[in-house]
Amino acid sequence: MNAVRVRSVESYVGGRWHAAADGTVVNNAVTGEPIATVSSAGIDFAAMADYARTVGGPALRELTFHDRAGMLRALGKHILADTEALYALSTATGATRADSWIDIEGGAGVPMAYAGVGRREMPNAKVMLDGDPVSLSRDGSFMGAHIIGPRPGVAVHINAFNFPCWGMLEKLAPTFLAGMPMIVKPASQTAYLTELMVRSIVESGILPEGSLQLISGSAGDLLDHLGPQDAVAFTGSADTARMLRTHPNIIDNSIRFNAEADSLNAAILAESATPGTVEFDLFIREVVNEMTTKAGQKCTAIRRVIVPSGLVADVEEALAERLSGIRVGDPAADETDMGALASLDQRDEVRRSVAALSGVADVVVDQCEFHGVDAERGAFLAPTLLRATDNRAIAVHSVEAFGPVTTIVGYDGAADAVEIAALGKGSLVASVFSPSDDEAAELALGIAAHHGRVHVMDEACGRSSTGHGSPLPQLVHGGPGRAGGGEELGGVRSVHHYMQRTAIQGSPDKITAITGVWTPGSRRTDSGHPFTLHFEDLQLGDAIETESRTITIEDIEAFAELTGDFFYAHMDEEAAKASPIFNGRVAHGYLVLSIAAGLFVYAPPGPVLANTGLDNLRFAAPSYPGDELTVFLTAKQKSLRAGSGYGEVRWDAEVINQRGETAATYELLTMVACRPEGDAA
Amino acid sequence: MNAVRVRSVESYVGGRWHAAADGTVVNNAVTGEPIATVSSAGIDFAAMADYARTVGGPALRELTFHDRAGMLRALGKHILADTEALYALSTATGATRADSWIDIEGGAGVPMAYAGVGRREMPNAKVMLDGDPVSLSRDGSFMGAHIIGPRPGVAVHINAFNFPCWGMLEKLAPTFLAGMPMIVKPASQTAYLTELMVRSIVESGILPEGSLQLISGSAGDLLDHLGPQDAVAFTGSADTARMLRTHPNIIDNSIRFNAEADSLNAAILAESATPGTVEFDLFIREVVNEMTTKAGQKCTAIRRVIVPSGLVADVEEALAERLSGIRVGDPAADETDMGALASLDQRDEVRRSVAALSGVADVVVDQCEFHGVDAERGAFLAPTLLRATDNRAIAVHSVEAFGPVTTIVGYDGAADAVEIAALGKGSLVASVFSPSDDEAAELALGIAAHHGRVHVMDEACGRSSTGHGSPLPQLVHGGPGRAGGGEELGGVRSVHHYMQRTAIQGSPDKITAITGVWTPGSRRTDSGHPFTLHFEDLQLGDAIETESRTITIEDIEAFAELTGDFFYAHMDEEAAKASPIFNGRVAHGYLVLSIAAGLFVYAPPGPVLANTGLDNLRFAAPSYPGDELTVFLTAKQKSLRAGSGYGEVRWDAEVINQRGETAATYELLTMVACRPEGDAA
Repeated sequence: MNAVRVRSVESYVGGRWHAAADGTVVNNAVTGEPIATVSSAGIDFAAMADYARTVGGPALRELTFHDRAGMLRALGKHILADTEALYALSTATGATRADSWIDIEGGAGVPMAYAGVGRREMPNAKVMLDGDPVSLSRDGSFMGAHIIGPRPGVAVHINAFNFPCWGMLEKLAPTFLAGMPMIVKPASQTAYLTELMVRSIVESGILPEGSLQLISGSAGDLLDHLGPQDAVAFTGSADTARMLRTHPNIIDNSIRFNAEADSLNAAILAESATPGTVEFDLFIREVVNEMTTKAGQKCTAIRRVIVPSGLVADVEEALAERLSGIRVGDPAADETDMGALASLDQRDEVRRSVAALSGVADVVVDQCEFHGVDAERGAFLAPTLLRATDNRAIAVHSVEAFGPVTTIVGYDGAADAVEIAALGKGSLVASVFSPSDDEAAELALGIAAHHGRVHVMDEACGRSSTGHGSPLPQLVHGGPGRAGGGEELGGVRSVHHYMQRTAIQGSPDKITAITGVWTPGSRRTDSGHPFTLHFEDLQLGDAIETESRTITIEDIEAFAELTGDFFYAHMDEEAAKASPIFNGRVAHGYLVLSIAAGLFVYAPPGPVLANTGLDNLRFAAPSYPGDELTVFLTAKQKSLRAGSGYGEVRWDAEVINQRGETAATYELLTMVACRPEGDAA
Repeated sequence: MNAVRVRSVESYVGGRWHAAADGTVVNNAVTGEPIATVSSAGIDFAAMADYARTVGGPALRELTFHDRAGMLRALGKHILADTEALYALSTATGATRADSWIDIEGGAGVPMAYAGVGRREMPNAKVMLDGDPVSLSRDGSFMGAHIIGPRPGVAVHINAFNFPCWGMLEKLAPTFLAGMPMIVKPASQTAYLTELMVRSIVESGILPEGSLQLISGSAGDLLDHLGPQDAVAFTGSADTARMLRTHPNIIDNSIRFNAEADSLNAAILAESATPGTVEFDLFIREVVNEMTTKAGQKCTAIRRVIVPSGLVADVEEALAERLSGIRVGDPAADETDMGALASLDQRDEVRRSVAALSGVADVVVDQCEFHGVDAERGAFLAPTLLRATDNRAIAVHSVEAFGPVTTIVGYDGAADAVEIAALGKGSLVASVFSPSDDEAAELALGIAAHHGRVHVMDEACGRSSTGHGSPLPQLVHGGPGRAGGGEELGGVRSVHHYMQRTAIQGSPDKITAITGVWTPGSRRTDSGHPFTLHFEDLQLGDAIETESRTITIEDIEAFAELTGDFFYAHMDEEAAKASPIFNGRVAHGYLVLSIAAGLFVYAPPGPVLANTGLDNLRFAAPSYPGDELTVFLTAKQKSLRAGSGYGEVRWDAEVINQRGETAATYELLTMVACRPEGDAA
């Protein structure tokens, strides 16, 4: 049917590049000329899923969280090392250099950020504890814990057209950190850019074979071949989300489905942010940014500009003035502020949405001059500013024009602003502009339940803010209701989506064996002073029960003298007795801690290099003069810092007195050296 | 149509009891006689949902987590104070006293446990922080945090017939702790018992009006009236779960849907748990318990008894012997071990399932003597033990006989056991019986991804274990795939299901105002020494910048002398220099901490009663002799212990040196007294 002489965008399936002869023609957004064909015809989707599960999954699960974090870091660096081909091709999507920066370098930033999450917030292990173990019996012989561990399935990622690189990478990072292989299916419209990035990643050899596969074109019957250990994550329209979510196989197998759908995001100008305030200016700047960046094709872009009724005219005027300075045209030109939409179809769709809004909104701005392009052949559109004639009209809060379009909506009082924002029935993000802490808190807390993210803008963060529309790796991205009810990103939170949380019950020794973290009540082993053992030689449960030491009143007085801590409960018998909690003078908590250290320290140079910190210290009972303290110190958790020559060891410390009472419990953190190179065990 | 003279089970709607004239007849499980009719005819479900949202929701959201925890505690105590009427009525469901104990007292234990979760793990506030705030800019002027806050919707709970009390209470507790009103719809078969409990709860006046409503009978068109802020939680069959999950309104509004469906739970006898071991005996006891408790009508009951091929005969013999001693009959009789199924329909259903299994399994036991009952008129059934003829037959791993029925399945080697367990395609729970830590860990980690809970049983926890089949409030209950893909319980984890997580971005002051927790970089206020302020008078951000103190070598030596901590890095210049991290002798970390306390302490008696603990201490830089330390101590978070006369205050502590470097950061926990009664501010 189609005689266009353009290349076909390929898929990467089962370790090979796959080309389909015919396919849907995709056009350059700027010139309207054909650029490629896209088709997934001929792919065996069942085999593809199986390849991920049997080749990619096992290879990823062999690695620890830190190993995979290292892989993500290498991946991010690899992409950043050579971005020019990506930038060049990205122009065809209508993106300016600034738009492409978000997609390409912003995209590469996600695996880099997740590399940090993996190294800092996850252990160098294959499963991780979720919360502390809890005792399930009076005597502590029956314990419960939760582990988060890998799932032997495949993650299928179905992405939107607007961010062909970032859209892939923001899902890739948590998926790989979780140890799950993935199959990515970008939107056909801009699949050629995703293909280029996947080629570069595959060629780098950084990822284990089978861990990343690409479908260019339709996902065919892939979903029919998924099972209960698989996961599907989708970004795109609510209609497609609905279709995928009700897929019989997804329903029958309770397959995890995470959706992030477009929504009617709001920016709220607070009443105190009047013209002349920094916040008013920031508001105007941000609305214009959100209208024009990516030509407004962001799922997070501001669609509803919610402003005090009395300020509508000021906001209109200020926005119209700023918009008149926006240069729309060739995205490759340096001076261009706004490029093209991704396709002519997309422009038609936006025009239809604007028409749907025209019944309930007046046009404030919808014209501009186009620079150096044929605006009709390319998918160009003027920034379009509307003003709602009825601030509760359904269309204003439900019709999303996915382009450089936004609608001004008036409100009266904070409660009204919250109600109006909630009419969006769930959004990805809203921003609040206010100089006042109280006003900002009232608005932010009022709208929080309806949003995945709330951005508060004020003078203090005016320069440093990354803006309303930018999802960040550290913060969750998603929202309730119309926004799909899903969650992505948010650091380690999104890694959990690709893992299974399992409650574990059993005796302390069994919990220790399964979690890889020593659990209170487990066996303690005396292998000599554990501070004499190198990282590799130290085993969980290696412990020391120290000598005892009696605290004297002289100790307390000397400690007060040395430290300057003359708190009455340590120094004054009568005053201490009058306190509601003490029976008389007590030892300083820090004296207890210091005496404990004196009891368990191993003084000569050895593998323990330093005490780097301490967690969860609780003084369970006061220590009085005459109390005799003993410490149990037990190796609780080990996490190797690969390549650094040392590891972190977390110790369980318990200080008990002669009555068998626990005086203090805490976790001690130490750096422990690995064996010198060449040393055998 | 129906002339049965029995009472109708009522609904509680909009603050009034609602009776429907006709209804489905429900029979006594033991005698087969009609006991009640059930119908929800005449209920305006839209108004019911609205009542929850507009009356119950606002009342609950006025309360803090601690207030609601107190309410749950009162509720649990109220139920436990008078259980006899519930026990008496419960007999009609076929339950023995021991069965009813799980339902009634086990049920009341859930709100009690959640009261503890609320008081211990949540702040005395209306929103809570999720994780620590993170800096999103180099200069710290732009921060991000996550809050978990209430949703202004209604939770709809659709429950199974087997636990009419526990089933309601295990969903009620996290829902109310979250601040959400609920509508409960128990299964009609045993709705009369739920009704009795709801009557008692309503009469107690403990819960705010509108926070609890009851539907006896069909849920009608209730789901059509739900929106994006609502939630649906379901326990029951996979078929019903499928129907609910695909309800168009649930899909269109991304309404949160949590399902907990029946599954083919397994008990795995490890190879080392041979006859004669304690674990073998525990295994036999547990399988029999799970077959007979509640006549096997538990979603968690063991359906697949996975044993080493070589031990199948031993297991068969031991189970058959134990089953022969089980007395089946009148649940009201003390000597009865197993009562009736919940209904004759239910028995028919189980018989159909056994028939479906008969093609792939041989019968080992299926007869028993019935004591004091007409076993055909009542819903009685003999414990039924099957042995799979093909250990991978689909029916064995997919047909759930929801009664006193289980199937023995042989395996060869741990990997085979894991594969066989996974054939269940996702289960709520599996148990592993092994004396060996390594073997147990291999099996538990192998099956973890397919289960919501894994129970490891050994001699050490043989007496204290609560058993394979008991979900506990502290541990998650749910499972992937066939088990519904949902999660309930698990302490605070399930509270989150009824709340919204929202990322907040902004300047530190704004983050502080919104989260109610002082955020680094926020304003610090000098209101005099903050330790002189009573709990009510202390504001977030109240801070002290202390005087400075220079550490001397004499301090270090005196501290070593006093504490006994002669670690070489403090005492030996050459050895310290040789260490990879120090440039010479350094101060003890605990000396730094103690000097800091000496700098910020307020010595005379005052509102600060005690330092109770310390969190997240990190020594960021070594402190050398000559270093001059200053402390910034700032009120970070307040949580009132209502009725105790004091509150907990968490302080942000930062120790800096004369170079402006951070030597240590931590959070200090103190008990701070409230103003004496009668004192005005």
